[in-house]
Amino acid sequence: MYDEKLVRSIVKEVLDKLSLAPRAPSGKIPVGLSNRHLHLTTKDLEILFGKGAKLTKLRDLSQPGQFAANETVTLVGPKGRMDKVRILGPVRKETQVEVSRTDSYILGIKPPVRISGDIKGSGGIKIIGHKGEIDLREGVIIAQRHIHMSPDEARGFGVKDGDIVKVKVAGERALIFDNIIIRSGPTHKLDFHIDIDEANAAGLSQGDLIEIIKS
Amino acid sequence: MYDEKLVRSIVKEVLDKLSLAPRAPSGKIPVGLSNRHLHLTTKDLEILFGKGAKLTKLRDLSQPGQFAANETVTLVGPKGRMDKVRILGPVRKETQVEVSRTDSYILGIKPPVRISGDIKGSGGIKIIGHKGEIDLREGVIIAQRHIHMSPDEARGFGVKDGDIVKVKVAGERALIFDNIIIRSGPTHKLDFHIDIDEANAAGLSQGDLIEIIKS
Repeated sequence: MYDEKLVRSIVKEVLDKLSLAPRAPSGKIPVGLSNRHLHLTTKDLEILFGKGAKLTKLRDLSQPGQFAANETVTLVGPKGRMDKVRILGPVRKETQVEVSRTDSYILGIKPPVRISGDIKGSGGIKIIGHKGEIDLREGVIIAQRHIHMSPDEARGFGVKDGDIVKVKVAGERALIFDNIIIRSGPTHKLDFHIDIDEANAAGLSQGDLIEIIKS
Repeated sequence: MYDEKLVRSIVKEVLDKLSLAPRAPSGKIPVGLSNRHLHLTTKDLEILFGKGAKLTKLRDLSQPGQFAANETVTLVGPKGRMDKVRILGPVRKETQVEVSRTDSYILGIKPPVRISGDIKGSGGIKIIGHKGEIDLREGVIIAQRHIHMSPDEARGFGVKDGDIVKVKVAGERALIFDNIIIRSGPTHKLDFHIDIDEANAAGLSQGDLIEIIKS
């Protein structure tokens, strides 16, 4: 009676669409914690890990195509050092190091709070890899908190790329984060990115759900 | 013409009164950062530092009569240790250790968020002093953020001891802290007490001024 192949094909397509649907139709947004990490150019990767070095995947991240690499480096500042700082892949056009304010005090540096990619005039640091080291002159930032979302998800929330919103966190360390930037595009997936300081101040853990409030 | 002694006496009295006046008549409240620290009973102080040991003052704290001691201890948890943790004086009726959530991860413990003094069923930790050590069974907390103020200052803000208020922080890491308890009494002086995680999440430093918002 039915063409089994056609039925399978339709079911598969429906399931694919469902898995691409916004993860939080209730309006809740999952929290993604960013620990200190860095992004490297191919050139810097080769200086740190040798000619022809490639990043190898440890695990996928929330944003499609992005991954945590097995490779780590040591950061050395004027006051202290931090070992086993993870590299995120794939390689980028500019090397960028993202630390928390707590990290910055340990290292003895004063990086600005910036959106990822906005590194002009930002802080410097020494990066030590397996095979070599780099004196990065600029590229160290404290990441400005932001929400990734697809254009469909943005429409659902009534916001667009670049908008500033507030986020409400419930619980014993209840607070409202202000000055949160929406980062929306076809490769973005719903996730509220904060660093460890912000998570600890608000009592938040990976995957907790928060609410958006329009500014 | 004037009784110089009387003039001096009046001037002194006026100056004394002025120095007792609220520090922030504009409605702004200074930020006081609490790094990890502990309070000890006389008994525990003697176990850690020897019979007859006394705390010696390093510097006064914002709250009248309270001081940071020269004496420090080491905290040892299941996962890590923290050296040079400062003791605050004077001695108290109960030993209490206050850490940040960042500290709690380093130590490998899960203390509750509590108001100072509310330690029933809270976390434990090993404390090592110069002469001895203690396995504290309860007394470790993450301090709930709070505002100290005198009864006069409380009247000025239209609040009273035990009230819950919000605090607005401006700047690039702008946010509104909710669930802040007012701690008011004759020995309290205007100060908004937060820990290092909270300060870093909000981009705040010691002595910065914030605004209160009634809940």
